[in-house]
Amino acid sequence: MPVRVGLIGVGDMGAAHVRTLSTWVPTASVVTAYDPDTDRATAVCGEVGGRVAGSATEIIEAGDVDAVLVAAPDPLHEELVLACIAAGKPTLCEKPLTTSAEGSQRVVDAEVAGGRRLVQVGFMRRYDPAYVQLRQLCADGAVGDVRVVHCIHRNARAHPAASSDGIIFNSMIHELDAVPWLLDDPLAAITVHAPGLPDRALRDPQVALIETAGGRLVTVEVFVNAGYGYDVQCEVVGERGTARLTPPYGLGLRRDGVDGVAVIDDFVARFRDAYRIELSAWVASLVAGTPTGPSAWDGHRANLAASAGVESLHTYGRVAIPHPDRPALYR
Amino acid sequence: MPVRVGLIGVGDMGAAHVRTLSTWVPTASVVTAYDPDTDRATAVCGEVGGRVAGSATEIIEAGDVDAVLVAAPDPLHEELVLACIAAGKPTLCEKPLTTSAEGSQRVVDAEVAGGRRLVQVGFMRRYDPAYVQLRQLCADGAVGDVRVVHCIHRNARAHPAASSDGIIFNSMIHELDAVPWLLDDPLAAITVHAPGLPDRALRDPQVALIETAGGRLVTVEVFVNAGYGYDVQCEVVGERGTARLTPPYGLGLRRDGVDGVAVIDDFVARFRDAYRIELSAWVASLVAGTPTGPSAWDGHRANLAASAGVESLHTYGRVAIPHPDRPALYR
Amino acid sequence: MPVRVGLIGVGDMGAAHVRTLSTWVPTASVVTAYDPDTDRATAVCGEVGGRVAGSATEIIEAGDVDAVLVAAPDPLHEELVLACIAAGKPTLCEKPLTTSAEGSQRVVDAEVAGGRRLVQVGFMRRYDPAYVQLRQLCADGAVGDVRVVHCIHRNARAHPAASSDGIIFNSMIHELDAVPWLLDDPLAAITVHAPGLPDRALRDPQVALIETAGGRLVTVEVFVNAGYGYDVQCEVVGERGTARLTPPYGLGLRRDGVDGVAVIDDFVARFRDAYRIELSAWVASLVAGTPTGPSAWDGHRANLAASAGVESLHTYGRVAIPHPDRPALYR
Amino acid sequence: MPVRVGLIGVGDMGAAHVRTLSTWVPTASVVTAYDPDTDRATAVCGEVGGRVAGSATEIIEAGDVDAVLVAAPDPLHEELVLACIAAGKPTLCEKPLTTSAEGSQRVVDAEVAGGRRLVQVGFMRRYDPAYVQLRQLCADGAVGDVRVVHCIHRNARAHPAASSDGIIFNSMIHELDAVPWLLDDPLAAITVHAPGLPDRALRDPQVALIETAGGRLVTVEVFVNAGYGYDVQCEVVGERGTARLTPPYGLGLRRDGVDGVAVIDDFVARFRDAYRIELSAWVASLVAGTPTGPSAWDGHRANLAASAGVESLHTYGRVAIPHPDRPALYR
Repeated sequence: MPVRVGLIGVGDMGAAHVRTLSTWVPTASVVTAYDPDTDRATAVCGEVGGRVAGSATEIIEAGDVDAVLVAAPDPLHEELVLACIAAGKPTLCEKPLTTSAEGSQRVVDAEVAGGRRLVQVGFMRRYDPAYVQLRQLCADGAVGDVRVVHCIHRNARAHPAASSDGIIFNSMIHELDAVPWLLDDPLAAITVHAPGLPDRALRDPQVALIETAGGRLVTVEVFVNAGYGYDVQCEVVGERGTARLTPPYGLGLRRDGVDGVAVIDDFVARFRDAYRIELSAWVASLVAGTPTGPSAWDGHRANLAASAGVESLHTYGRVAIPHPDRPALYR
Repeated sequence: MPVRVGLIGVGDMGAAHVRTLSTWVPTASVVTAYDPDTDRATAVCGEVGGRVAGSATEIIEAGDVDAVLVAAPDPLHEELVLACIAAGKPTLCEKPLTTSAEGSQRVVDAEVAGGRRLVQVGFMRRYDPAYVQLRQLCADGAVGDVRVVHCIHRNARAHPAASSDGIIFNSMIHELDAVPWLLDDPLAAITVHAPGLPDRALRDPQVALIETAGGRLVTVEVFVNAGYGYDVQCEVVGERGTARLTPPYGLGLRRDGVDGVAVIDDFVARFRDAYRIELSAWVASLVAGTPTGPSAWDGHRANLAASAGVESLHTYGRVAIPHPDRPALYR
Repeated sequence: MPVRVGLIGVGDMGAAHVRTLSTWVPTASVVTAYDPDTDRATAVCGEVGGRVAGSATEIIEAGDVDAVLVAAPDPLHEELVLACIAAGKPTLCEKPLTTSAEGSQRVVDAEVAGGRRLVQVGFMRRYDPAYVQLRQLCADGAVGDVRVVHCIHRNARAHPAASSDGIIFNSMIHELDAVPWLLDDPLAAITVHAPGLPDRALRDPQVALIETAGGRLVTVEVFVNAGYGYDVQCEVVGERGTARLTPPYGLGLRRDGVDGVAVIDDFVARFRDAYRIELSAWVASLVAGTPTGPSAWDGHRANLAASAGVESLHTYGRVAIPHPDRPALYR
Repeated sequence: MPVRVGLIGVGDMGAAHVRTLSTWVPTASVVTAYDPDTDRATAVCGEVGGRVAGSATEIIEAGDVDAVLVAAPDPLHEELVLACIAAGKPTLCEKPLTTSAEGSQRVVDAEVAGGRRLVQVGFMRRYDPAYVQLRQLCADGAVGDVRVVHCIHRNARAHPAASSDGIIFNSMIHELDAVPWLLDDPLAAITVHAPGLPDRALRDPQVALIETAGGRLVTVEVFVNAGYGYDVQCEVVGERGTARLTPPYGLGLRRDGVDGVAVIDDFVARFRDAYRIELSAWVASLVAGTPTGPSAWDGHRANLAASAGVESLHTYGRVAIPHPDRPALYR
């Protein structure tokens, strides 16, 4: 019998998840969805034969919902995930787990108190085949001891709800999770620069200079108004060489004096495989009993780094990233 | 209820199909498999909970097999597909449909006589996202009227059973199907060169120069002993520009004085998406009633071109490719 | 004292040569130039302090002209080069040496009769650093025994004087010289396809399939109306790998949804280094006594292949390329 | 009559300059050279017919030396350039102008006191065709207002005399000059990170985060033990797109499972064009009267940034870069 999923939040991400589940994940079915925009919820439920729910709570408490997929706006994540934990329902929550380190601490505390892992955070890059290869290659020492990592994270246009702090908590959060995972080396300190321009509310682009506990240096550029498309790059620099993600597969065009390739303007298409594999693995882990992907603890660790980054953005200084003990539940 | 698939032939291709079906195609399950190498059949059945069949016939006739996947050696295709047609079982047959144009004519005749489309041929490139984009782009005139197409098709090492004629019927067959599909323009004549080297049994590489009915020129290099990896390229040259497949997504490495990317030595990995989408679409079409992918007629058309190519290889001359009327069943 | 050069023909190529000589070749000075378009000749002479000549003959016979650079229209080459030989003046003649194999035979005969090498042909690709590297790499067996070569030669727009035969004699002539030089293997037969389009006078693009004496296969696409820019590619395919020219150094741009590089629309810029080195080496060889670059014999060999190509273009058949004995002067 | 050049310091750089001058710069001749390693000086003078000098002073004071090329070790630059100024001899001094900002201040003071520009600093990247294009493109707003610049500067192996501070003064100095020149925007503050590894004397790699007066952010990675080759990259990120240097022209190789291009392990080859054009322009400016390339003031400005960078490297903090008034001589 398939795992019955309830979806909270039918924005672009939520709708994409439904399509990925219905097309590629044999063992799951989306049975219900909620969104304050009833039209969107109705449309998505129509595609997969699910029912429109009247509230998020209704989904969390429904007897025929085995697992909850949270794709609601960031500020709602904490409350929804806590409710899932209270209800004993496994949940895959989009990143960030919460919009503050205090919030993610509360989620961790609740989960630890419950004594059982229920929460997975949507850090889908950990499932991207090239990121996985890159991590293996670092572990194998294929480029020697890693000394530097360079990350680029660009969006064509900022989300209407984008804020200067949110650039860290919603966008850079991917790198704040992916880099320590890639290197198996926690982040130790962060400096974020984004010189204020008097005429602009949004401090964008932002450049972070991060140090790891193991003495590596990391640069991260996040630019949410980069204009030309969605572009994620990552280069790892070791003592014997470097490794980097190549552009996604597609077409090269020579036309009008330019030899080029299209830049995908869509994170869903760019990370299609990562989303497929993430959702497949999540559902498979639920069938087996316990989610095995990025945990609430991983979400909290990324939030601690993001929180330090926000402090640096406002103080112009280098901020240490706390390194708390990992609770037994997450070992 | 899932579509129950029986597999005939558990070589690399067959085993890959089973894994793709079980991982990515929700609505199918492999219930049985046959291979003269019982160990291989047993291993694959063990993975998916299917039973080992005692013969191909047993699979074709089994009451709980809704559809047959033929991944047996090329020379067996004709007999197996004819048996599937006789049994009224939908079948996805790996390319080539048969090893002669006479054989594929017999398959077409049998299917037409039966009055119902049952056969799909495994021309998976038609499902590759970049090929699909390339075809759309040609149709849209994005590079102007197409004048030339260049195809490269290289394998690291020849299959032990490779023969000079087989290079055309088993390898170049992909291009002989894909090019007219890309251009919506049938092939009209073919010249294949592969200067004999006195000390070599296998005439490899081969270079074909093909003309289409619409006056386009096509070059195809097939090299099954290219040494360095599996490499498929396709460039379409129009009056306003060119378009080409880019390399698959992965890692770039700068090391030992070279800035490079790994060349995938494996057609399954190279065309992973194409296989996923091919099998999903096939199963979905069966649920809906009739296969909609490359038909026996497409397989026969490619064989007519391959047959002309083999004649050219032996006569050193330009050979016209017949252009028979399409039976009503395939319109 | 610098080598005093006289220039015949001040079109784009002639003017570019003057600039290359005056900027990059210490040991040469352009002392006079002739062109029926007196304004062009005056402009170029003004740049370098030379005098405008009243005729080509005046240049060839001038006592203060040590060497002649022929950049006049192709049909004039034969007469001019013969006059230089008669006058005992070293000459660098742009490709093609003449517009027929009979003409280049006459040049060879005259030079052999004179008993002294005076003529160099402007096959500048032999001086391009990447072509030179590619040739060395073939000689070293770095990709194993070479089996196939693929050449692309595209111009954005045809020269107003372009003709179907001229595409072979003026454009493909580069490949007809470069490939046997790259491989150290003469060309043996050629098939040129360019399906006639009823509404077009110019048979373009053209695709040639060439066999070498050593059993290699060569494809050449020449497309003089390719629209998007000037593009020369060359890939050598061996039994252990392939090697190819990379695009020229410049800028990559990500903009408007495309990640691209500019395609140079100008053969002078594309082969700037090749022209610099060609002219430097030519002048240096004159100082030393005898031109050492591509000889009249090389020009004649390329013409024999071009002539066979033209025959194939008209007859639609495979045409053998004659392989005459090399006169002692050119050994 | 050619400009007669005397060379002080015949290391790799000095020897390369001699070859570039003799091969590519018509209007210069190297008449004498000095190096404490007499064999090197003798070898180089032998190539160009110059005489071996007994000391640097002998060169600076020689009546037949019109201009001095200083390619001696960095710590000697200040004294040599001051001597050239005192002797009224134009000099092209390799970067850095001096090894401290105090030193370059003294050079500027001496030149200003003399009332005449004599000094050019060897910031050859300003002559690299792609850097020049990149600068023009920034000025044209082709990628919108520039917000970020990313620079990579890697050497395969550290020079035996490399030091942690020297990585900034000898290597990063290129970026500290090139970036404000590219953007026409002076550097305002610098933070250099290079976490000390207990077992290593050399703090390498180093990553700098630089702010410009105009509010742009710049990252610079310098890694002098990068192992795989010499690699210089530069990407400019604007509000409408990005532009970056492409790899140098050469060969692509598919071999042993990798599709790659050779990384040049040699800054002379990588920037061959830049050196040619730099030296040509320098000699031409001397013929015209006054050097017009990067001035002592440019060398001093880069040193001020380098000096701030060294302070940051030791204090772990952000250090402001002084922005003194430009003396009238350099306007």
